[in-house]
Amino acid sequence: MERADVLVIGSSAAGLVAALAGKRVYSDKKIVVVRKEQKTLVPCGIPYIFGSIEGSDQDILPSDKMFQDAGIELKIQEAIEINRSEKFCLFKDGEVIKYDKLIIATGSTPKIPEWLNGKGLKNVFTVPKDKNYLDDMSQKLKKCKRIAVIGGGFIGVELSDELNKAGHEVTLIEILPHILGLAFDYDIAERVESVLKERGIKLKTGSGVKELLGDKQVDGVLLDNEETVNADAVILAMGYHPNSQLAQNAGLAISQDGYIKVDEYLRTEDPDIFAIGDCAEKRDFFTRKPSRTMLAATACAEARIAGMNLFKLSAVKTFIGTISIFSTAIGEWGFGVAGLTETTAKSEGFEYVTGTFEGMDKHPGTLPNAKKQTVKLVVGRESGIILGGELTGGLSIGELTNTLGFIIQNRMDLNSILTAQIGTHPLLTASPAAYPLLKAAGNAAMKIMFRN
Amino acid sequence: MERADVLVIGSSAAGLVAALAGKRVYSDKKIVVVRKEQKTLVPCGIPYIFGSIEGSDQDILPSDKMFQDAGIELKIQEAIEINRSEKFCLFKDGEVIKYDKLIIATGSTPKIPEWLNGKGLKNVFTVPKDKNYLDDMSQKLKKCKRIAVIGGGFIGVELSDELNKAGHEVTLIEILPHILGLAFDYDIAERVESVLKERGIKLKTGSGVKELLGDKQVDGVLLDNEETVNADAVILAMGYHPNSQLAQNAGLAISQDGYIKVDEYLRTEDPDIFAIGDCAEKRDFFTRKPSRTMLAATACAEARIAGMNLFKLSAVKTFIGTISIFSTAIGEWGFGVAGLTETTAKSEGFEYVTGTFEGMDKHPGTLPNAKKQTVKLVVGRESGIILGGELTGGLSIGELTNTLGFIIQNRMDLNSILTAQIGTHPLLTASPAAYPLLKAAGNAAMKIMFRN
Repeated sequence: MERADVLVIGSSAAGLVAALAGKRVYSDKKIVVVRKEQKTLVPCGIPYIFGSIEGSDQDILPSDKMFQDAGIELKIQEAIEINRSEKFCLFKDGEVIKYDKLIIATGSTPKIPEWLNGKGLKNVFTVPKDKNYLDDMSQKLKKCKRIAVIGGGFIGVELSDELNKAGHEVTLIEILPHILGLAFDYDIAERVESVLKERGIKLKTGSGVKELLGDKQVDGVLLDNEETVNADAVILAMGYHPNSQLAQNAGLAISQDGYIKVDEYLRTEDPDIFAIGDCAEKRDFFTRKPSRTMLAATACAEARIAGMNLFKLSAVKTFIGTISIFSTAIGEWGFGVAGLTETTAKSEGFEYVTGTFEGMDKHPGTLPNAKKQTVKLVVGRESGIILGGELTGGLSIGELTNTLGFIIQNRMDLNSILTAQIGTHPLLTASPAAYPLLKAAGNAAMKIMFRN
Repeated sequence: MERADVLVIGSSAAGLVAALAGKRVYSDKKIVVVRKEQKTLVPCGIPYIFGSIEGSDQDILPSDKMFQDAGIELKIQEAIEINRSEKFCLFKDGEVIKYDKLIIATGSTPKIPEWLNGKGLKNVFTVPKDKNYLDDMSQKLKKCKRIAVIGGGFIGVELSDELNKAGHEVTLIEILPHILGLAFDYDIAERVESVLKERGIKLKTGSGVKELLGDKQVDGVLLDNEETVNADAVILAMGYHPNSQLAQNAGLAISQDGYIKVDEYLRTEDPDIFAIGDCAEKRDFFTRKPSRTMLAATACAEARIAGMNLFKLSAVKTFIGTISIFSTAIGEWGFGVAGLTETTAKSEGFEYVTGTFEGMDKHPGTLPNAKKQTVKLVVGRESGIILGGELTGGLSIGELTNTLGFIIQNRMDLNSILTAQIGTHPLLTASPAAYPLLKAAGNAAMKIMFRN
């Protein structure tokens, strides 16, 4: 019977990073990674295989080479049972691997609402992290002119933009008043909408979907408001649910939302079993409530912490709670958010002020390709602590969102921003005299000072 | 006699930001800004008026409107004397303004070495922050084919690239073995050099300048190694010296290097007089030694602190020492540095390890425009504290350098990076599984762990 010091189930972002972090810290341990897919996709790259890149073969996670270089064993196998008392895992072909430590990184699967009539029609798709499925879907979509995307979260928005880029007529349907309405405040979401509309994507917001229409093949979407959106194909981008069945069958505690329960070290109830990534329970950094964030970057952060804490705990290397840090790009525009939005701060009962500023992302603003950059900060009124922020601008927004992420997770306050030293360059950043992040902090500070 | 609660001398980045920050905090105070130039240039934008933008009119700091909007008075006047006992400032036309608090933000002037023969020849230029001078220089350069730039610091490098872009034959001359050799370690500087060379700029490094050749008009540069660089124009980009004469005449203490001495609140010896920006003394954040950094971004950071501390001190709003945070762009490539380089860490006696990683700045790396991104961190061996880092990649490097800047100035250590949550996006950032900043931290951690 084979034996692994560390057995990792799943090798998307979380499994990959946990194995590598584990091997870095515990170099003498035998680490075996098992996954069921022949090839793993870069998960966040999936929308782009429909437009910007040539197909899924251009979106392969280079995990296999990374495993090989690090001395980590890889097996293509499907895990079907975890035996906790004997500490082994059983695979579909009958193979058994004993483990000392087990990491569950089984990811998530697209949600398909039970109640949705027509979900079984031809040309109704979801967006799983499954290369074969996506290759087939990609071929079929090529023959479809009109595509309806249901769900205006990040996947739905990015997919819509890519399909539009590839020449399809795209309608994006969202039940909330605005797309990305869970991620951004509505004032920011409206900017994303205006960019999408400019690029030719039709938006239907504020109305849910009643059913999918068609005989054998889908030919439209009937909305709650009785409007019909004609479509040769429909893509359901309605979220993902955690793959926690394997853990549940092994008797591990599962949260109400279906996630595997974990502590700050990403350990399940069983101290020798870790769970990370989309399948693992998350708790919001500020509200301390369960969070449904499913992001590769969050998964990787958890994975690094699990990997480092496999055989000995380090009190300083714990997961402090999920800070949603998102960014996206549409054309030459970037949008980012980290931490709490104003909407969330309000609904969760935080006492806050906002600070806003609008500037240019290059200086002077006359430089070619300079874009308007806006920053909106949400700041604790009493503490001055930065609770969150939303950013819009050019393509530097992704890394600027990470600066904000570092500020938030290290619980910095307005003073840390107001006294901060930054580096600026005409072609790369806003002006040092009107750097929107700092100016927005100044705006918030003034509101706190003058109690308005 | 006119009276100002706050009188600011100079309105480039430092003066502008100090006046605005002061007005934000002390809104009932009368703030008067006096400068001698009709129009102020965006200082870091100056190299770009020779190529990327149409001229200096496209590089005007929008300070006048900002002053007006904020209720700050602006006068065009040259200050010629500060009378500390009577607390007034005398101007060239005889006007006198009494002050309660005075901020000196007089900037810096290009260095022209005394010993340099030929410095007075026609078509020998410097790069002052003076619109009239630069407009005239710009006109004259249009008639010059071959241009030699002396000094491979940021101004020299950026100017060379812009002049090359505008069609000139540019030779960049640097006495150190590599251009940007004071800002970057040589391994990083070499990457900048290879990009410049690819773009057609000739580099002469490792040899100083003996003299400028020519009769009335310059026609070449004679190097220390006896080589001659033919040139129709020569630009001296050999650094700047602080404009501290006004302060010195008023009896304020001046450092050995010629900077106005200041404390952590940016106050001079005279508690009612502040000095900020290029003319004010700087002390390195880590080494605590005098620093010669002259950056608009540093000036603005000092200005914000001076502005906030004008009438009451806030112990949390002090200047913690200068962290050099630079970035630059050449074509589609970005280069950045924050804090100590390996060279400085070594020469200053820090016990350190480096951590390096090379990845792609988009994910998958097959995406159009994806660029190689490298991170090199310098980390205290015992403390794990991040002392500095150098970054190369695409145009997102500017903001990534700022993330690193926040990490450094908040004295974060490897654990803060290894447990950090980041936000990633295919089109905007590196992959979450191979985010170079985090991977470089992992590399450094491994060296510390295994003592190699």
